Amino acid sequence: MAQSLFITVEGIDGCGKSTQAGLIADALETAGRDVLRLREPGGIEISEQIRAILLDPENGEMGDVCELLLYEAARAQLVHQVIEPALAAGRTVVCDRFYDSTTAYQAFADGLDRDMVAQANELAVNGCRPDLTFVFDVPVEEAYRRRSGRGAEDRLELKGGAFQEKVAAGFRAIAAEEPARVKLIDAARSVEEVFADVSAELRAVGA
Amino acid sequence: MAQSLFITVEGIDGCGKSTQAGLIADALETAGRDVLRLREPGGIEISEQIRAILLDPENGEMGDVCELLLYEAARAQLVHQVIEPALAAGRTVVCDRFYDSTTAYQAFADGLDRDMVAQANELAVNGCRPDLTFVFDVPVEEAYRRRSGRGAEDRLELKGGAFQEKVAAGFRAIAAEEPARVKLIDAARSVEEVFADVSAELRAVGA
Repeated sequence: MAQSLFITVEGIDGCGKSTQAGLIADALETAGRDVLRLREPGGIEISEQIRAILLDPENGEMGDVCELLLYEAARAQLVHQVIEPALAAGRTVVCDRFYDSTTAYQAFADGLDRDMVAQANELAVNGCRPDLTFVFDVPVEEAYRRRSGRGAEDRLELKGGAFQEKVAAGFRAIAAEEPARVKLIDAARSVEEVFADVSAELRAVGA
Repeated sequence: MAQSLFITVEGIDGCGKSTQAGLIADALETAGRDVLRLREPGGIEISEQIRAILLDPENGEMGDVCELLLYEAARAQLVHQVIEPALAAGRTVVCDRFYDSTTAYQAFADGLDRDMVAQANELAVNGCRPDLTFVFDVPVEEAYRRRSGRGAEDRLELKGGAFQEKVAAGFRAIAAEEPARVKLIDAARSVEEVFADVSAELRAVGA
């Protein structure tokens, strides 16, 4: 049985992480791994119900702590129902967003106490941590350009450019704090160039 | 301006707490207080949306940690949007269930780690604690008899008698641990007899 591997991809919307997640999953499957691709907070019914509450533009009165705990509830269910069983079976999990997003959005951008966010993350994942995390770093204007044409903006996107700058800075800070796990990738380049860097990191961990 | 007062009522379903909450609210209004009566986790749109996820019998795959965090998310919004502003304005809040329910149901009955539950409670309420809590203690069979005829059982009620026994024992333990705040009331008596004890406790705190 293959050794399990848990990879997460992070960054602001429009950074290209979903495209790279697909390339990572394809490459690891080609290498013989049994890959499960997920995006947070969904993929399962309960977490999608929670996601619907979080993204509803009508819920503008939502307080920061409620928002934090909803993200963590959706994550807890995803970990319990999908990620832990997959890893226990030796599978490879590639997840689009995980707890670093919560640290970047809720602590660095929304200004919630970082210890509070760390505690909430810990409650939700219950020891289930990524082996490798990619942060795709791209200027906010470039990410906005890439997102244009994707349709109506949701509640998070409505928060605007200054908010996105804080999120992006948060992701860079996380990468600086945990260099062994979190790889900062310059994503303001072509898909191929970005994936060449990603591939090098995958090889470095023997994936 | 009157001094704010935060009262919660707790116990298993069918213990009579909602009836007593109404009597408490009426008595305190008669005494000149501006009373806001609430039930957890609802009263506000976002928390009701969360409640709908929690009580949906289709969501039987929900893990204990997800359930815990959803209760806390609904509570955090209620505290943020309603309870804190009301107390800040000098009002009296009478709330049907609060964090002691989470301790009784998730820690004592579901078996979650008590420190984890205490941490989650603390995240949600952010220092907003009841001044006075009534636990209405009644035998599980009596509570079941009182509930009969209330319509379809929801997901929590489907958990059965042994579960309700653990919850009731949890509430008694909480009352024993925090006697200054939490008053254990023998609720296997008439509404009038129970409320006589409640009234005595209210007078004791000068309410």
